[in-house]
Amino acid sequence: MTTGAAPIPPGTVGLEDIRAASGRLAPWIHRTPVMTSRTLDGRCGGSVFLKCENFQKIGAFKIRGAMNALLLLGEAERARGVVTHSSGNHAQALAQAGKWLGVPVTVVMPRTAPAIKRAATEGYGASVVSCEPTLASREATVADLIDRHGYTLIHPFDNWDVIAGQGTAALELVEQSGPLDVVICPVGGGGLLAGTALAVKGLSPSTSVVGAEPKAADDALRSLISGRIEPSFDPKTVADGLRTSLGERPFSIIRERVDAIITATEPEILGAMRFVWERFKMIIEPSCAVPVAPVLDRQYPVEGLRVGIIITGGNVDLEPMFQALAAKWL
Amino acid sequence: MTTGAAPIPPGTVGLEDIRAASGRLAPWIHRTPVMTSRTLDGRCGGSVFLKCENFQKIGAFKIRGAMNALLLLGEAERARGVVTHSSGNHAQALAQAGKWLGVPVTVVMPRTAPAIKRAATEGYGASVVSCEPTLASREATVADLIDRHGYTLIHPFDNWDVIAGQGTAALELVEQSGPLDVVICPVGGGGLLAGTALAVKGLSPSTSVVGAEPKAADDALRSLISGRIEPSFDPKTVADGLRTSLGERPFSIIRERVDAIITATEPEILGAMRFVWERFKMIIEPSCAVPVAPVLDRQYPVEGLRVGIIITGGNVDLEPMFQALAAKWL
Repeated sequence: MTTGAAPIPPGTVGLEDIRAASGRLAPWIHRTPVMTSRTLDGRCGGSVFLKCENFQKIGAFKIRGAMNALLLLGEAERARGVVTHSSGNHAQALAQAGKWLGVPVTVVMPRTAPAIKRAATEGYGASVVSCEPTLASREATVADLIDRHGYTLIHPFDNWDVIAGQGTAALELVEQSGPLDVVICPVGGGGLLAGTALAVKGLSPSTSVVGAEPKAADDALRSLISGRIEPSFDPKTVADGLRTSLGERPFSIIRERVDAIITATEPEILGAMRFVWERFKMIIEPSCAVPVAPVLDRQYPVEGLRVGIIITGGNVDLEPMFQALAAKWL
Repeated sequence: MTTGAAPIPPGTVGLEDIRAASGRLAPWIHRTPVMTSRTLDGRCGGSVFLKCENFQKIGAFKIRGAMNALLLLGEAERARGVVTHSSGNHAQALAQAGKWLGVPVTVVMPRTAPAIKRAATEGYGASVVSCEPTLASREATVADLIDRHGYTLIHPFDNWDVIAGQGTAALELVEQSGPLDVVICPVGGGGLLAGTALAVKGLSPSTSVVGAEPKAADDALRSLISGRIEPSFDPKTVADGLRTSLGERPFSIIRERVDAIITATEPEILGAMRFVWERFKMIIEPSCAVPVAPVLDRQYPVEGLRVGIIITGGNVDLEPMFQALAAKWL
C-alpha cells in the first residue's frame, strides 16, 4: 500500500517491455472487446469498463504471458522444449503457445486434477506428467524433467516475461476505454496484478491499481500488511484461479505499485458472477467475479469514477446447466 | 420455397421501411456486435457471422420491433396506451419501450406463465393481466381491454411496424459482415424471419434466406409445403420462443421471400447451445441454437460459404447452474 512513485527493483520489466510484448503478441491473440452496462453503472454510481479476456484464445488472459515467454526463447531453448506446473488456464495457454510455435510442452499436474483439465491440455498437444498433490512432489517432478531433458521452466506467474505478457491486457484496456481512475484485477499468484500495475502506473501514475481476492484466500492482503509473502494453504473458494500464493517477482512489484487489495466473500462472488451472466449475457469464471463484487455492492465505492476491471477468463464447467436442461427436455 | 423475385403483396413493408426503422431506433438500442469463431468455421467449413442480439437491450432482438411500433404511433394513441399478449421477450420489450416513451403498457399473460416472466415485465413498469391458457381466453381478454380503454394492440409478430423493426438486425448484420451467401434465423411467429427476408433480399436478391425451427415445432415447414398456415399445438421443445404458429402477415412475406426452412432435433439444439456457450463464452437462449445446429453438424452444408446467423436472445433461467455452485461452495 504505497504510492506509485516508489522505485521498482532493477532487473525487472516495465512499460516498454509490455509495449514490446503487445506488438509481439498481436498476430497471435485477440484484441478482446471492452463491455459496459448501464445497469452495472447504475448500481455502483461509476462508469465500469470490463476488459473481456473470457473471449481471448483458450478462454483466458493466460495466453498472453505464456506466448510472450515462448516468443522470447532462443532457438535452442525452443527446440529442447518447456515445462510448467499448473492444472488451470496456464497449462492450456502454454500448450496452445507451444503448438503454434512447434515447441514441445510438458505440464506437471497433481494426479488429483480433474480429468477434463488434463484432457484439455493434452488436446493442445502437450504431454501431461502426474505428481502427488504436494508442493514437494511438484517441485521434484519439475526439477527431474529439467535435469533429464533440459526443458526451460515457464512458471505460471513468477517469470518476468509472463508478467510483461499479462500486462498487455491492461495496456489494451486503457487504449480502448480512455483514461481510468481505477483498474482492478484478481490476484492469485500475482502475475496479472503485477503486469497490470506496471502497465497502468507506467501510462498514468495517478490511476489507482487494486487487486481483488477471495476473503477465504486473502494471502495477498496479509502479505502486503506483513511485508513478506504469506502462504495460502489450500483455501476453500469457488474462485479456483485464486487459490495459490504470491510469487516473489510479482510480490516485488505489487508491494511497490499496488494501491489496495479488496476482498469478497463466497456468496458475494457467486452473486456478482450471476449478475454478469444475467446482465452481460457472458460466461465468466468465478475468479473474474471477485473484483466485480465489491464494486457492485458498493463495498468499494466508485461513485463518479471511471473503473476498469479485467475479466480474466470464461472456462467454467457447464455440466450442471446442461444436465438440468437435458433432464427436462430430452 | 420460391425465388426472391416473386412479388410482395401491396400494403406491406419493404427495405425502405426497414432503413427508416433503423434510423429511428438508433438512439435507443445497441448496435450489437458480430462474433466469429475459428472453431465453428472449422467445424462447418464456412465463414459464420453471429449477430449477437443476446447483447441487445432487454436481452433480445424483440426491442427493435416493439420500439419501432411505439415510435410510429400518434400522440393520441400513445396517450391511451397499448396492449399485447406474450409471456416471452416481446412482453419485456414492449414494457421497456413504453417506459422510455411514457406510453402505458398492458400485457396479457396466461396465468400459467412463470412468475419470473411476470415479474420481469412488471419490473419495466407494465401492467400484467392474467388470462386462461387458451387462445379464446387470450383473445377475449385483449379485446375487452381494447374495448374498455381504447388501447392499441401491438401484436408480437403479426404487425408491419414490428416486422420492419425486426428487419433492422439483418440490415446491421450485412453492414457489419459484408456480403453473405446465406442468412439464417429462427422462425416462431415469423416476424423476425419476414423482416430478415425483406431486408436481405432487398439488399442482395441472390443471398439465400433460411428459417430454422425445432423438428418438434415444424409448423413453418408444413405451412410452406401446404401453402396455408398450419397451426402449432403446444409443441414440446426446449426452444420456448419458437412454439407459436405463424402470423398471417409474416407468412405472406415468408412464402414469397424465404428459400428454405431447416429443422433441428432437441438433442441437436442443446448440443449447439452448449457449443456456443463453451466456445463463444456467451449465453444464448435455446431458440438461438436452432439455426446453429444444422450448420455445426453439417446437416445444412455451408462449405465455402459466408453465413450470417441471427442470435436472437440470451434470456435463460440460470438457476440450475447457480444452485449447483451454491450447493458446492456456500
